[in-house]
Amino acid sequence: MKNLLHSKDLSKREILSLLDRAEEFLETVHKRKRLKLADGKILAALFYEPSTRTRFSFETAMLRLGGEVISNEGMNETSSAKKGETLYDTGRVVSQMADIIAMRHPEPGSALELVEGARVPVVNAGDGPGDHPTQGLLDLFTIRRALGRLDDFTIVMVGDLRNSRVVHSQCELLMNFKGVRFILVSPEALRLPRSIFKELSKKFKVEETDHLEAAITGADVLSHTRIQKERFSTETEYKKYKGVYVLTPALMKKAPDSMIVIHPLPRVDEIDMAVDKDPRARYFEQVENGVAVRMAILAELLGL
Amino acid sequence: MKNLLHSKDLSKREILSLLDRAEEFLETVHKRKRLKLADGKILAALFYEPSTRTRFSFETAMLRLGGEVISNEGMNETSSAKKGETLYDTGRVVSQMADIIAMRHPEPGSALELVEGARVPVVNAGDGPGDHPTQGLLDLFTIRRALGRLDDFTIVMVGDLRNSRVVHSQCELLMNFKGVRFILVSPEALRLPRSIFKELSKKFKVEETDHLEAAITGADVLSHTRIQKERFSTETEYKKYKGVYVLTPALMKKAPDSMIVIHPLPRVDEIDMAVDKDPRARYFEQVENGVAVRMAILAELLGL
Amino acid sequence: MKNLLHSKDLSKREILSLLDRAEEFLETVHKRKRLKLADGKILAALFYEPSTRTRFSFETAMLRLGGEVISNEGMNETSSAKKGETLYDTGRVVSQMADIIAMRHPEPGSALELVEGARVPVVNAGDGPGDHPTQGLLDLFTIRRALGRLDDFTIVMVGDLRNSRVVHSQCELLMNFKGVRFILVSPEALRLPRSIFKELSKKFKVEETDHLEAAITGADVLSHTRIQKERFSTETEYKKYKGVYVLTPALMKKAPDSMIVIHPLPRVDEIDMAVDKDPRARYFEQVENGVAVRMAILAELLGL
Repeated sequence: MKNLLHSKDLSKREILSLLDRAEEFLETVHKRKRLKLADGKILAALFYEPSTRTRFSFETAMLRLGGEVISNEGMNETSSAKKGETLYDTGRVVSQMADIIAMRHPEPGSALELVEGARVPVVNAGDGPGDHPTQGLLDLFTIRRALGRLDDFTIVMVGDLRNSRVVHSQCELLMNFKGVRFILVSPEALRLPRSIFKELSKKFKVEETDHLEAAITGADVLSHTRIQKERFSTETEYKKYKGVYVLTPALMKKAPDSMIVIHPLPRVDEIDMAVDKDPRARYFEQVENGVAVRMAILAELLGL
Repeated sequence: MKNLLHSKDLSKREILSLLDRAEEFLETVHKRKRLKLADGKILAALFYEPSTRTRFSFETAMLRLGGEVISNEGMNETSSAKKGETLYDTGRVVSQMADIIAMRHPEPGSALELVEGARVPVVNAGDGPGDHPTQGLLDLFTIRRALGRLDDFTIVMVGDLRNSRVVHSQCELLMNFKGVRFILVSPEALRLPRSIFKELSKKFKVEETDHLEAAITGADVLSHTRIQKERFSTETEYKKYKGVYVLTPALMKKAPDSMIVIHPLPRVDEIDMAVDKDPRARYFEQVENGVAVRMAILAELLGL
Repeated sequence: MKNLLHSKDLSKREILSLLDRAEEFLETVHKRKRLKLADGKILAALFYEPSTRTRFSFETAMLRLGGEVISNEGMNETSSAKKGETLYDTGRVVSQMADIIAMRHPEPGSALELVEGARVPVVNAGDGPGDHPTQGLLDLFTIRRALGRLDDFTIVMVGDLRNSRVVHSQCELLMNFKGVRFILVSPEALRLPRSIFKELSKKFKVEETDHLEAAITGADVLSHTRIQKERFSTETEYKKYKGVYVLTPALMKKAPDSMIVIHPLPRVDEIDMAVDKDPRARYFEQVENGVAVRMAILAELLGL
């Protein structure tokens, strides 16, 4: 593994190896320690689109490994990109200083351009609606920790399946496993892109519905995402779904005791705060898991 | 002490204990050293309102303790707040990564909301016009270093007493001591809020005047703050006070030799630069004191 | 050496001593290590004008020396400057926290004002069109590494010689050496400022031309800079030069085998990407050299 660019580049062996490594780092994260593993190494965080949460997660991961960070969350505003520099040149230049690069960018495929120039490993920290492989990996990590496996389980994906890069990354990564049953819950207008749907359907049992309550009764994992009003063409269409996909304590009563709820955060109102206390809610725990997974990715790519 | 949210939450014992601890750290600050005390700990600096000075002070304090920093001075622009995330959720999320949080926010009381979600200690680094407890503490630290006591002294507070959160914090903190005489010098429109005035008056001798020169002849401490033109309703009113409260070498001649001048900075023109050389001017020394006091606060809250 | 403000302040002995020190640090940069030399020291990076590349270079240099960093790339937007604080006060305040300051500012001479207040060393990281001494030094470092000397060579400077602070810094620094032959290639409107031209001409052989191809046949160093469309008064004038100064593989065939190409980056289209593979292209290598040179400057000013 030289870079981590896209979820579909990862083999099952690579995924499991990263998750195993993350398992080891989780204790460091829980105990809030700093290792010496990455001593002297520098991470460059290049964010062409703001994402404080993801940036903080990468930076925390690097610091807990013992490394250092140089960082810019406003690359689109302040960097040479504005003067017309290509991503190729930026990759080339930054890799003369840093030992590894994490990039967030609004354009799908931008990570590939940076990699061409870079002389050090690059991690895709989200490129537009395309992919967010480190988030997908931490979701798998959370699932495996809860269920003990990544095969033979039922995942209910709910919300804006069309535009959520997190959902897309989950699908791509789960393609490496077997016996996964997908129940896709979304408004008609926000269905999973047909290309991903077809790919999934070749290997797995995939159902589409717009009814959340029925779907969760047999779920092992509920993967929730935010629905944005602006995605709908009419107010009527929006109102039809507004509230239907809000996860409430009442709805949680219909779900199995062993089901877990994951969500990439931030949430707005799609999960009632009263659900936070439910032990099945794992979205805050995912933040800690995310640091461990990113430690594993950075350590792996740095050859530590 | 689990958090440091508001000046009025602090007991006399807690204040003195923090100042004693800061005294110990002052040598580290003077000698520009880095301790190992906070090794492996991470401070998250969440600034929803820019304040480079205060952010640098917190970050320097954490670094000199031996810890690390993740930081964002543009939380209002770049963070999930824009997507509608609550401060509760932000507190919950960030505390899965960092060991302690310092937050600056324009809304009074916002620190309380963050604390609800946070699972790690929170320090209020200023919340709107409300309070700025770490600045208030460093002011007391500076006063105690100069006078040797926090009881039985005369403080002249001058400037925009109505809107200065620093002045309000000073008043709240000094309520824990005895025999303090307050002389409040301000234009009519910028008087100390009546609630604080009444509280002070119950315990202390408090005078209000708009005449600075007379006030300072018997002062032990002159606490100066900036007056902003936009606070006045008319140009005539503004001109009446413009210049009257400018501290000049001539005015300093009327003040006792033992009086000290404190100011939270930045200053614009309310203190003549010629006063900088006067040994009674302590506003730049306060910056160093601020690092020591914040080291004490961080160490205390981290249980180090 | 107490500060590094302007190229013309540096003596030949100081330049050579810095370059020798940078030579020692280059191995650390190549091996991507972190020394303990600056342990406990803090660099404040104050950027009143964005420049991610230069900021990253200074921060990387400080981190590789073993020090820590506090940083702001948006000082013009977020700092007390907006409230009317003088650079004198900013210098005074920041030097109560940090051990050394690197400042980038759009106004020529601004570094001098900051220095008045600062109580710690200040490095000018570029002040408007005036000067960019650390870039000039790394250019000399790159030249000396390639040619083995800084005397008796031919440098072709091409592009916007009027406005490029990098070119101006190169000229000021080379004034300390002997036998340098300058060939200045630029459109009439973008000639080197007459003051610098006259100074150079007193000591060196200086030719001006607008013909690049002829110039490079005898060059040891080609110092390229970007030409911006907005510098020309008419579209016709711009089109006359657009493309003429683009460095291509075809043009490189006319140049000696031993010539090197330097460029401060970012480039837009003035150097064809196909030239990158040419071993004479040194503009990416310069980035690494820049870290080593800045390590030398920081170490020297910190007395390490």
